[in-house]
Amino acid sequence: MEEYLDFAVSLALKAGEMIRTDFRKAIVREWKADETPITTTDRKINQMVIEQVAKRYPTYAILAEEGSRPKESEYAWVCDPIDGTVPFSNKYPTSVFALALTKNGESMLGVIYDPYMDRLLTAVKGQGAYCNKERIHVSESDEFNKTTIDVEAAREPFLHDISKLYELLLKKNSVAISLRSVSYGGMLVGIGQIAAVVGAPHSPWDGAASKVIVEEALGKVTDLFGNNQRYDRELKGIIISNSCIHDAIIKLVRPLLEKKV
Amino acid sequence: MEEYLDFAVSLALKAGEMIRTDFRKAIVREWKADETPITTTDRKINQMVIEQVAKRYPTYAILAEEGSRPKESEYAWVCDPIDGTVPFSNKYPTSVFALALTKNGESMLGVIYDPYMDRLLTAVKGQGAYCNKERIHVSESDEFNKTTIDVEAAREPFLHDISKLYELLLKKNSVAISLRSVSYGGMLVGIGQIAAVVGAPHSPWDGAASKVIVEEALGKVTDLFGNNQRYDRELKGIIISNSCIHDAIIKLVRPLLEKKV
Repeated sequence: MEEYLDFAVSLALKAGEMIRTDFRKAIVREWKADETPITTTDRKINQMVIEQVAKRYPTYAILAEEGSRPKESEYAWVCDPIDGTVPFSNKYPTSVFALALTKNGESMLGVIYDPYMDRLLTAVKGQGAYCNKERIHVSESDEFNKTTIDVEAAREPFLHDISKLYELLLKKNSVAISLRSVSYGGMLVGIGQIAAVVGAPHSPWDGAASKVIVEEALGKVTDLFGNNQRYDRELKGIIISNSCIHDAIIKLVRPLLEKKV
Repeated sequence: MEEYLDFAVSLALKAGEMIRTDFRKAIVREWKADETPITTTDRKINQMVIEQVAKRYPTYAILAEEGSRPKESEYAWVCDPIDGTVPFSNKYPTSVFALALTKNGESMLGVIYDPYMDRLLTAVKGQGAYCNKERIHVSESDEFNKTTIDVEAAREPFLHDISKLYELLLKKNSVAISLRSVSYGGMLVGIGQIAAVVGAPHSPWDGAASKVIVEEALGKVTDLFGNNQRYDRELKGIIISNSCIHDAIIKLVRPLLEKKV
């Protein structure tokens, strides 16, 4: 796994450099068919990842937000070139590069890189999670009161409607935030800063890296129903937490999921 | 006003340095009686501002989040040492230093400094608004669809309950965000990046600097009911917008305000 990790880190640092540089420039945001935004920086990084993986691991699949490369393989590199295209294109620095290696849908290795504050999170299954090579752990908050929770409700079309969660959390005296990057929130959970991210993403690259990083930091990552899921196919949303607060979140979210959109 | 501006900028740069430095350290968050968080960095900056103003403008009032200095004066320096103590203490970089000079409650001069991305916004009434000395203007989005709007619903106790707004905006296909700093959102409106901030703050320092900066960038700033308000006393929440979308927001928010909490 050491070789995989070095490879993933090298991609993350390259991508981070591109994000940092382009943040300072005029950014043109376009909209994709699924009504999510894209910039030329997302495309450039995606292309770089595809080229590098194709060269180094030609038989592995690539699932990436701005273009994939399907292969019959038990291994897939799962990548979001910029998780947080909204922050990036609206000029606030809460975007990250996220990359994971999955084997039969299980997240084996993950890297999340915050290019602005230079925080590099890495984890290999069974070997702990690290930020800039220092071991990290999730927080211990087990109640909503005074606890920061990131809500990432999707714009339409969405599979699951959790948009009411922001209001519900405030009523429970939580500090609800919504930064528009699931992996950025995953990073904050991993380093013990916020208690959870509750999101409605349906793409595997929104959760694959957080899955192994946060669980190796002793947190818990499931779908919105509290079940484990594969990270090489469509997701049923995600709950990324410090584990202590996981069940309380499932209970809070459950009634929202019964509402058909 | 030139002299006032130089003074305000010098405080902003000093404060910014303290925020940047302390962000890298372990941050202990305490909770105040009003259930909002505070750190030693908030206190240090607040103290620095009080000392500097007392020395330079001994007859002026100071209204600041972590301690004020009341004076019988038509002038008040209105300051939030860290607008975004939640981001600061949860280690994501969307906090700013905000300072305004009000005369009889009117915001005459404002400075917002983003120490992480080194963005210094300044405005003097009647003289335009600037980011790092370049003239800035708000955006032109006049519809909710695909438009980013920052919701800053307060935790209890609050005067006005706008927590449902996040959900309402998503249903209108807006990109709803919640970064937990009204002045940071004001900065993003001023530089033309997001269309609006809708917040429920009741403290003048949450709006005083944005008021003059965003209006000099050709935007509009009112209370939640669409009325002008003084920035040297309690606020009735705030709408900071590019002006084009202002009326639509008032219309969307109005029904929420009738709900007594």
